[in-house]
Amino acid sequence: MEYDPQNAFARILRGELPGIRVYEDELTVAIMDIMPQADGHVLILCREPAAEIFELSEEGAAACMRTTRRVAKAVKAALNPPGVLIAQFNGRAAGQTVPHVHFHVIPRRAGETLIPHGTVPADAEKLREIAALIVAAMPEGAA
Amino acid sequence: MEYDPQNAFARILRGELPGIRVYEDELTVAIMDIMPQADGHVLILCREPAAEIFELSEEGAAACMRTTRRVAKAVKAALNPPGVLIAQFNGRAAGQTVPHVHFHVIPRRAGETLIPHGTVPADAEKLREIAALIVAAMPEGAA
Repeated sequence: MEYDPQNAFARILRGELPGIRVYEDELTVAIMDIMPQADGHVLILCREPAAEIFELSEEGAAACMRTTRRVAKAVKAALNPPGVLIAQFNGRAAGQTVPHVHFHVIPRRAGETLIPHGTVPADAEKLREIAALIVAAMPEGAA
Repeated sequence: MEYDPQNAFARILRGELPGIRVYEDELTVAIMDIMPQADGHVLILCREPAAEIFELSEEGAAACMRTTRRVAKAVKAALNPPGVLIAQFNGRAAGQTVPHVHFHVIPRRAGETLIPHGTVPADAEKLREIAALIVAAMPEGAA
């Protein structure tokens, strides 16, 4: 996938589009997925402009992992799902829809089927409520 | 999920069970999945005994990410699939079957449905051939 500086995540990172942020640091930003595959679905964006993990720097990949693990802990603590899926898609054939590296943290509950990627917008008020729970549970310092 | 030192991956790490290794370093080992969801499916195991990512150390998580990215690059270079899926499951509800932290690198090809996890054993000879291609394409030094 070619990098496109006008992709939605680059625009969210630049503040040109809104996003419900649950965490950010120098290298990454974590936002609620507005078309979640399950309640509590969070996206971890690398600030670095890279479409796929192959082009991402080692430093950028390490930062994504740190934030992904931190967010996964917060989602587990806040929502207590029995399962947590971490996923990262490279290329349309793998399910990637936005050409900017991102990791998914998706709560998994027994017998609950994932909503197909990017199909059903969540209620904004409900998203903000879930985000507040996740923010409150976010580990401080080294996670 | 509770950690069980007799889990299959711990036994592979200790050399008590065979595994087709494509990469290893001090903290991680990458092996071919013997019941692959697609041709070229590789598992990255952390040597650290942890069942889920929540219990894994930050150092262990960083090492898994480094090796996962390295393996993803090798799989892309060796097999040239249009997509590469990276996934890590925590808890049975998320699809985890072995209680030892591991990351999946799975080639994705348009229109190819993933074989359900852990159902169909691959032909050993074919697995070894694919492994040899991946090893030959493994980045050296910092990936």
